[in-house]
Amino acid sequence: MATSTKAYGVQNEKDNLKPMDIKRREVGDDDVKLDITYCGVCHSDIHTARNEWGGSKYPVVPGHEIIGHVTAVGKNVKNFKEGDVVGVGCMVDSCQECAQCKNDLEQFCEKGATFTYNSEDKHLKGQQTFGGYSTSVVVDKEFVLNIPKNLDEAGAAPLLCAGITTWSPLSHWKVKKGDKVGVIGLGGLGHMGVKFAHALGANVVMITTSPSKAEDAKKLGAHEVLISKNEEEVAKHQGTFDFILNTIPVGHKMDPYIGLLKVDATMVLVGAVEPLEPFHGGGIIMGRKRIAGSLIGGIKETQEMLDFCGKHNIVSDIELIDIKDINTAYDRVVKADVKYRFVIDMASLK
Amino acid sequence: MATSTKAYGVQNEKDNLKPMDIKRREVGDDDVKLDITYCGVCHSDIHTARNEWGGSKYPVVPGHEIIGHVTAVGKNVKNFKEGDVVGVGCMVDSCQECAQCKNDLEQFCEKGATFTYNSEDKHLKGQQTFGGYSTSVVVDKEFVLNIPKNLDEAGAAPLLCAGITTWSPLSHWKVKKGDKVGVIGLGGLGHMGVKFAHALGANVVMITTSPSKAEDAKKLGAHEVLISKNEEEVAKHQGTFDFILNTIPVGHKMDPYIGLLKVDATMVLVGAVEPLEPFHGGGIIMGRKRIAGSLIGGIKETQEMLDFCGKHNIVSDIELIDIKDINTAYDRVVKADVKYRFVIDMASLK
Repeated sequence: MATSTKAYGVQNEKDNLKPMDIKRREVGDDDVKLDITYCGVCHSDIHTARNEWGGSKYPVVPGHEIIGHVTAVGKNVKNFKEGDVVGVGCMVDSCQECAQCKNDLEQFCEKGATFTYNSEDKHLKGQQTFGGYSTSVVVDKEFVLNIPKNLDEAGAAPLLCAGITTWSPLSHWKVKKGDKVGVIGLGGLGHMGVKFAHALGANVVMITTSPSKAEDAKKLGAHEVLISKNEEEVAKHQGTFDFILNTIPVGHKMDPYIGLLKVDATMVLVGAVEPLEPFHGGGIIMGRKRIAGSLIGGIKETQEMLDFCGKHNIVSDIELIDIKDINTAYDRVVKADVKYRFVIDMASLK
Repeated sequence: MATSTKAYGVQNEKDNLKPMDIKRREVGDDDVKLDITYCGVCHSDIHTARNEWGGSKYPVVPGHEIIGHVTAVGKNVKNFKEGDVVGVGCMVDSCQECAQCKNDLEQFCEKGATFTYNSEDKHLKGQQTFGGYSTSVVVDKEFVLNIPKNLDEAGAAPLLCAGITTWSPLSHWKVKKGDKVGVIGLGGLGHMGVKFAHALGANVVMITTSPSKAEDAKKLGAHEVLISKNEEEVAKHQGTFDFILNTIPVGHKMDPYIGLLKVDATMVLVGAVEPLEPFHGGGIIMGRKRIAGSLIGGIKETQEMLDFCGKHNIVSDIELIDIKDINTAYDRVVKADVKYRFVIDMASLK
């Protein structure tokens, strides 16, 4: 049996988002059901709704930055109870048995993680998973996160994707007090990167093409701003960065950024899921430099990030919207006209 | 005072190599003088002679894979004595004081290492350093390497550049017994990579475009050969490599090789000092993969490599030539027609 549930989605790649009804499964022994209170709007939602990455199955109900209140739990669920404030991020299932899952890297599950939307639904055969632009969702307990009580619920929603995407590389590459850390790009991801790097005690340099973003970057925690179009400024910072978090969402020139890295330092790409421009092999050979990628983060690491946010009272800077305004919000995200994440007040869908 | 010394070099970028006389400094308190017995021929020699990387100062006397016998030492030299078989690689000096030098990474000396040829000579003002295509050389004791007695002298010459260039990444990225290691490209660098990875106990896969190289690769120690043009074969190896040593000397497509890496695995470039083709950001984001560069190695690491070679009796496979045949050898190197390194018998210059 499945329950009809209100949602917002698209029927094809040209469609605007509209109200629709979807099915959610009954609460199984290992499941947690939540009433969704807030859902963040990620650029991936738009790529999938519009089939810009290919492979979208319609209808698409986006949303993988989900905050909700628990309304029911299965008999095997010990860690959550009715009324708890919880989060669900980009994944709702994985095999839990392969080397990657056992290593807390469910995002790289060898059998393929079940993503929160547009993956094959293991429970409701024949349909794909539907995301958080909806009034409720049923999720396996292993993929439900605890949200620290002191955090603003709406502001916490983007932590589930933008947060973990930027936290994971900072944590994995062990960014620490005193490190000179560059964050390239001041959007949904970049603004979280600045907050996290600042809270970790790093000397944070916002690297951006837009002088207009300097003021904002400093408010968010950047100690310095480097305008990447200013060659003289860039030259001064050559070879001085311990770590660079690159959140640019499109293909771009990498040589100038590689030049900023110290010997043995790493630049991690988290945004550009597309072809990059050619870079010069000599740029990484001289200085044994590294370019790496990083994809969201595992569930254990996501909880660690949320606990860190609780301790440091970190949430996203958001613009709260009603669901009826989602299409306008999409257009603004595409124009990078948002500070720094739209979050949907899901009460507006009820 | 300086001593006139026989050498072979070019007077300009269009020139063939010809006999010439150069000046070597007198033996200072910290110096070791050696009679050069063998000198390897590296592709960098050709790039510099022909000014293909820019910045060549003429005359150019190439050669940075030098084996010789000690003929004199300064009063501060304790580790070497007359008659010792020693090596000199790509560097003959560095500041010895910066963070990189103190960290045994003289190749990244913050004041700039003095390379064996075509660097400013600190001792003979106004001239550049001259390399090993010559009968003798005087080198600071900190840049002289001990050659294990059991090694064939001619075969040992290429260890000083091709050897350390491939050893350093295998050692730095901790390649170990049982790791699946790919070596891309079977030339001077690649054939050393195969030998080292084999001796480290790795499961070595030669990755090449040429089926004709399969037999040779196996003789050198590869357990398997992957023909990179065969898409079906490549697909079978997707996501299975712990480490890839990429010795391709020119810009190339990287996506197929990135696909071969496991989660968290690294591909290290040691050859392509030029612009690479665009690769897809998604290729490294999915799987948190890494692309890095590596440049020769520090002096301490070079001695470790030589000691390892002594223990495992590893030398380069070479074609020994007389100095008069050097121009033909250059043409053959450019056509990749050498197995696997030319070494000049310097007795032929006397």
